[in-house]
Amino acid sequence: MTTPATPTGVLEAAVYVDDLDRAEDFYAGVVGLDIVTRNDPRHIFFACGPSVVLAFVAEETRVPPNEDQLPVPPHGAVGPGHICFSVPGEDLDGWVDHLVTKGIGIESDFHWPHGPRSIYVRDPAGNSVEFAEPKLWGLT
Amino acid sequence: MTTPATPTGVLEAAVYVDDLDRAEDFYAGVVGLDIVTRNDPRHIFFACGPSVVLAFVAEETRVPPNEDQLPVPPHGAVGPGHICFSVPGEDLDGWVDHLVTKGIGIESDFHWPHGPRSIYVRDPAGNSVEFAEPKLWGLT
Repeated sequence: MTTPATPTGVLEAAVYVDDLDRAEDFYAGVVGLDIVTRNDPRHIFFACGPSVVLAFVAEETRVPPNEDQLPVPPHGAVGPGHICFSVPGEDLDGWVDHLVTKGIGIESDFHWPHGPRSIYVRDPAGNSVEFAEPKLWGLT
Repeated sequence: MTTPATPTGVLEAAVYVDDLDRAEDFYAGVVGLDIVTRNDPRHIFFACGPSVVLAFVAEETRVPPNEDQLPVPPHGAVGPGHICFSVPGEDLDGWVDHLVTKGIGIESDFHWPHGPRSIYVRDPAGNSVEFAEPKLWGLT
């Protein structure tokens, strides 16, 4: 049997949130992502390049599906998670200005030893949200 | 002031794990991702197309950095998270065979109402890991 080809990317990255309105304000209103779908009180999903960012309310996603629902496995984490968005390095100054203007505090802003810069904020649920350029990981 | 361009993608998606060896066995040995870096006992990172999958031990990432360390903000979630890998639809049968051969149980395998198929397994830490084709979200 042939081993399947390695996945081509991350199709879905998840964060857990406690308030879908505040998640929408942040990920759509501040980060600028388009909303793919919103299903209160369970989730709101956002498009981000070749990926989708899933913002879930854990107390809803922990409930196993009924027999008349699709068999989507339950999950749901508690506590601050982490996600990083790819942005061009030359946009990072603009991101700092934009985030501060929107009332989002910059928690950290530094250059890694090999040069790339990361800026970090918190989403309204307390997740650590980073903005960095792909060369942080040698990606383009 | 100009709003910065929307992020071009998810640069980092995180899962929390309890054992880095088992995480490596799964994400490298079964899923086939290349290891970017491993730093015991805190994390192991994997390359996945234009993204990096970060597998963190939450009890380590929750510790704030010392003054002599880079100011990477703490985070760390508990409980099963979720990630989905992009794979071609024609590879999904092969993924089922491959996962079963590797001793990974298929938790769910179904088609969404609009056609695309998703398969779900658990990583060794209990995270819900999905394999799906990009057209699940209208992406190519």
